[in-house]
This record gives sequence, C-alpha cells and structure tokens, in this order.
Amino acid sequence: MERLKKQMEFIVEVDKVKKIIRQTYLADASRREDDAEHSWHLALMAVLLKEYSNEEVDLSKVVPMVLIHDLVEIDAGDTYAYDEAGAATKNERETKAADRIFGLLPQDQGIWFRSLWEEFEAYETPEAKFAHVLDNCQPLLLNDASDGRSWAEHGVKKSQIYKRNEHTPEGSREIWEYMKELVDKHIRLGHVIDA
Amino acid sequence: MERLKKQMEFIVEVDKVKKIIRQTYLADASRREDDAEHSWHLALMAVLLKEYSNEEVDLSKVVPMVLIHDLVEIDAGDTYAYDEAGAATKNERETKAADRIFGLLPQDQGIWFRSLWEEFEAYETPEAKFAHVLDNCQPLLLNDASDGRSWAEHGVKKSQIYKRNEHTPEGSREIWEYMKELVDKHIRLGHVIDA
Repeated sequence: MERLKKQMEFIVEVDKVKKIIRQTYLADASRREDDAEHSWHLALMAVLLKEYSNEEVDLSKVVPMVLIHDLVEIDAGDTYAYDEAGAATKNERETKAADRIFGLLPQDQGIWFRSLWEEFEAYETPEAKFAHVLDNCQPLLLNDASDGRSWAEHGVKKSQIYKRNEHTPEGSREIWEYMKELVDKHIRLGHVIDA
Repeated sequence: MERLKKQMEFIVEVDKVKKIIRQTYLADASRREDDAEHSWHLALMAVLLKEYSNEEVDLSKVVPMVLIHDLVEIDAGDTYAYDEAGAATKNERETKAADRIFGLLPQDQGIWFRSLWEEFEAYETPEAKFAHVLDNCQPLLLNDASDGRSWAEHGVKKSQIYKRNEHTPEGSREIWEYMKELVDKHIRLGHVIDA
C-alpha cells in the first residue's frame, strides 16, 4: 500500500491549489477564481476545443498538462500575467516548487508530471502550444463576461495582451481570431487601453 | 464561427458550477469546496489512480465524465450524499438541467456529454464505476484531512457511508480498502457514528 499512500498524500497536498487566487474574476464578477477552478475549466476546454488546434494534439497529454500546470504555484504563488517584477524571479521559485511537489509522488508518476510541466513551460510541442492557447483564452472569456473588470483594475493595454499572445496563433488560428474580436470589443468599451 | 461561438458560450455558462458549494471542506477546513474544484480533483485522481481500477478503463471517457458529472447542479443544486428528501426529487431536477445545459453545445458535443453524464448516473460500465470510486473517495480524503468536520456536522453514520459505497469495491477493491481504513480511524476518533 506504500505506493497508493504516496499517491493519496499527493492528492491531499495539491488541495492547496484551491487557495491560490488568480486575478481573473468569475463570469458574474462576484469574486476572483482559484487555480483549481481555472485548471478544471482548461481541461474541459481542451476536450471541447481540440478541433481548433492547428496541429493534431494528444488529449492524453494536454489534459494532464493543464490539470497540473499551476501546481507549482502552491509554493511559488500566482504571478499575474502582466507583473514584470514577479516574472523575473518566477522560474527560480517555480523550479524549486516543482522539485518538492512532484517529488511527493511515486517516482514514475513524479517524473511524468514534472516532464509535462516542463513541456508546458518550454512552449514547443503542439500539446504545449494548445495548452497555452487555452490558458490565455480562458481568462479572456471571463474578462469579457465580467465587463473587463480585471483588465480595468490593472490598466491593461492591448499591446500587453498581444505580447502575451504572440505565440497563440501558432496553437490555434481560429481561437486567436475569436480572442482578437473580444479584445477589440473591450477597447471600444474602454476596458482595455488602446496602446 | 457559429460552432465556436456556441462552444465558447457553453464554456462561459458552466462557469456557474464554481458557485455550487458542496458539503465537503477543503483539506485545511478553511471553507467548503465547490463543484469545479471537486471536478478538477477527480480528473487528477483519474489520471493518477487508473492502475487501481478493477477493470481496464479508458481515460478518454473517464476524464470528460468526471469533468462534467456535476454540471447539472448549476440548475438542480447540490444534493448532499446523505439527504434523503433531496434524493427523491434529484432525478427529475437533474434531467431537466441536463436538457438545458448540454443543449447549449453544438449537437454532436451535446449528445456526447449527455451520454457521458447518463453513463455516469447509470453506474454500469467500468468507466462509470471507476468515476464513482473517485467521486466517493475524494470527499473522504478531504474529510480525513479536515478532522472529519463535515461528517461531524451532519452526524454521519458508518452504515450511511457503507450504503453509499456499496458498489465501490466493484470499481476498485484496493481504493475501497484504503477508504475503509480511513472510516475506521474516524469512528475511533468519534467523527463518524459507529452504527
């Protein structure tokens, strides 16, 4: 039972990701969402939107990838997409977190999750590119539904959104077209700064 | 873009599942969890614990099944595991909810999600049995971590837990053995009533 015990302890440890609060508000703007909710949403989107990936992707990689992509934030905290100071130390903090958190699992599963997380971060494979499309698109959908609240609070500029999404069209041209229309709408509404 | 628009509208609509609060507390007992967090946890468990399913299961069915198994609660609300009055009207409320919610999707995906949800509820296939193992085990892990808080609040009896889990050993003998040990521990601690 040693293996099962390790797995169960990991499952309980990662419960902490439910307490990592993101900047994005729920669609009804009642509160911010947490990493577990965000990751659930991405997994569901992966299943529904696979057909829009430019390249064929293997969902048996994409789904676990998005389910675990934010676990390092249990130790490293959430770094807001447009926080430049935070971005400078993000890699070091997250690598240390990955060592500890994935190290709790039986070795084979720890190595597997670690490699999925590294693949996501490296942003090179079709699966990683598609996972990033989802990771960038989901907050945009929620920002749209919540009248751009998080954008307005942070004074976000169109150029920042475009910079963050510079590789999004490599993952999915169609989803990026959809996202661009939403950004344009919120520029017109004054929620995103046209600069 | 009509198809993509429908899918995106569904993805925003089901954001509401983040507001359906369950009876189970987070591992640190700080608050109750919601359905999106619960579903994220089940999907991760499916990936990690597949090896303990008595029968071979197809994760490309189990994972979407657990991701969507509680969406009907957006309209029907959460029915607590040991709420007998609620259980009497659960089917009718949830069937109506399924009609509306899965009906938002493009027809092929709506039919697919609806059939996954019905398969889960019917509790017959290896995938449905394994999904139920996870759905029953996860709150037990959180109850254990949070000193049995939810059990104690509801005065839950061992016989109620065993009744709810009468088919759990058909899904996974090993996980059920692990769960039984946890229940026994909390009977000794006085959090579950030995009756």
